Amino acid sequence: MDLQALVRNVPDFPIPGVLFRDISPILEAPAALNHALEQMVSHVDLDAIDAFVGVEARGFILGAALAARFGKGFIPVRKAGKLPPPVQSLSYELEYGKATLEMRAGRGRILLVDDVLATGGTLTAALTLCERSGYEVVDIAVLINLVGLHALTFRGKAIHSVLVYD
Amino acid sequence: MDLQALVRNVPDFPIPGVLFRDISPILEAPAALNHALEQMVSHVDLDAIDAFVGVEARGFILGAALAARFGKGFIPVRKAGKLPPPVQSLSYELEYGKATLEMRAGRGRILLVDDVLATGGTLTAALTLCERSGYEVVDIAVLINLVGLHALTFRGKAIHSVLVYD
Repeated sequence: MDLQALVRNVPDFPIPGVLFRDISPILEAPAALNHALEQMVSHVDLDAIDAFVGVEARGFILGAALAARFGKGFIPVRKAGKLPPPVQSLSYELEYGKATLEMRAGRGRILLVDDVLATGGTLTAALTLCERSGYEVVDIAVLINLVGLHALTFRGKAIHSVLVYD
Repeated sequence: MDLQALVRNVPDFPIPGVLFRDISPILEAPAALNHALEQMVSHVDLDAIDAFVGVEARGFILGAALAARFGKGFIPVRKAGKLPPPVQSLSYELEYGKATLEMRAGRGRILLVDDVLATGGTLTAALTLCERSGYEVVDIAVLINLVGLHALTFRGKAIHSVLVYD
């Protein structure tokens, strides 16, 4: 199945000069969604995973879908102030200003997932937060990897991705 | 399985006087998550559903999980400015101020889902937006129904819910 043909390319969104990769057509089509989920974990021994972690908000979609599809738990990483206490927090630098991510402390082997890997700032922060919160991060997977925008690796290897855009 | 025993009750969150029903322990436990998903659609003929619609952000979790679990599509309703154009928009009144929801226009039979039904303002707006965007809303389902806080019905009947709190 050609998932890339389903991605809708939207010029100048959310700001002029940015080409937005819209995965809505994949999410809407049951066979495409199922194929995307299978491809996202094609490199992973699922027996070695207890839960999927997804980052608010779009990472919730694929993270929760993977959890339900493969019979695992789902753990959210949220923006500041959204999760009830007690939480672990991590602030990180954005291009303009700062952002804070939060999650509950816990244990277990997790796969960290997001839909699009662009600069990698949020995913790097989420990775650090997962580890500080007590989780063992087994791997990271994304649906779309905009490889020209980041130098992020995990244990010295490229982030596992289903669709790559140079 | 006693899902209600897994809900964590957090007093005074997000503001003093509010008792927050935290479903994180259900999401984290694979058997509980699966049971919750099955209970959310126990009243529905799944053959009559093309997709699940979830409202940003927490509605993404159960909506996407249901889509993956039952082989359907997932369609997000998002806050203003998050979805690429073209979108349908709907503004609605909150206790203080206004909020706007957006979604892509489309066709098909959908089940609108959210995690917690409190005042019903957002879910009512999402229902109207789905219909204006071209979708046929077959039913509405929530995991937790705080029945004392709303008078929302769908086609004259109570909203289907898994856990009810008076």
